[in-house]
Amino acid sequence: MKNIAILILALSAAAMALPAAAQFAKPEDAIQYRRSSMTVLQTHFFRLGNMVNGRTPYDAKAAADNAAIVLAMSKLPWPAFGAGTGEGDTRAKPGIWTQQAKFNESAQKMMVQAGALDAAARTGNLDALKVAFRASAGNCQSCHDAFRAR
Amino acid sequence: MKNIAILILALSAAAMALPAAAQFAKPEDAIQYRRSSMTVLQTHFFRLGNMVNGRTPYDAKAAADNAAIVLAMSKLPWPAFGAGTGEGDTRAKPGIWTQQAKFNESAQKMMVQAGALDAAARTGNLDALKVAFRASAGNCQSCHDAFRAR
Repeated sequence: MKNIAILILALSAAAMALPAAAQFAKPEDAIQYRRSSMTVLQTHFFRLGNMVNGRTPYDAKAAADNAAIVLAMSKLPWPAFGAGTGEGDTRAKPGIWTQQAKFNESAQKMMVQAGALDAAARTGNLDALKVAFRASAGNCQSCHDAFRAR
Repeated sequence: MKNIAILILALSAAAMALPAAAQFAKPEDAIQYRRSSMTVLQTHFFRLGNMVNGRTPYDAKAAADNAAIVLAMSKLPWPAFGAGTGEGDTRAKPGIWTQQAKFNESAQKMMVQAGALDAAARTGNLDALKVAFRASAGNCQSCHDAFRAR
């Protein structure tokens, strides 16, 4: 599992080093890609939430599997927020580009928290998972409040 | 990297063992999830295609990173093709459910080929990547022709 984290961190660094224009042919491709990676992330994050909140039985293996996907997905959306991708089929607020330092800090926090969530899920301890899940959920909410339109 | 393959195979088996209804609250959630995972897969597959076809310079590290994401994504869509998910915002053809054995065979082939693509990308040899990429691309095409509406 450590290999995954190293791989994804390296990948993310490589991806971020390239201009978005080099990665996406059209702005709408970037928008669709970032929405898609967030959808996959959210699906597996919600499955963890269901376990944390007792809506589905806690299953340590399923928790670890879901958290691994959340971690992998947490690295993907950021290169797709390049200049010129703020209009179209997107709820992205202009603040993403006018307050880039704050946005990047939230993105960084999400990746770190996804790593902590993955580590917690792998302990097989539900209480550890609850703590890490709730910390992550709080950051999802505050970043969406700041940077995603309703 | 072997860890990723083992993890994802285990995850996929676990996911497939559950009925879709247990994983997705609504059919449209399943549809959005499978489309999203395919979009992420396609984005990274096309980046490999750009290297294979000489549209972007060959970069062994980027190729390996892209192929690892393709491999991870190749395992995700299948549990989202549950019964009752054939209508709505989808190009899925009815054959997915009326010819399940053929569809499952194509899905299995895709996962195996994504594993081969990942292995080829990690060799750092462009010719190996070309062979694996073209085999995969052929399967994408034939499965889409059979099971995805235009």
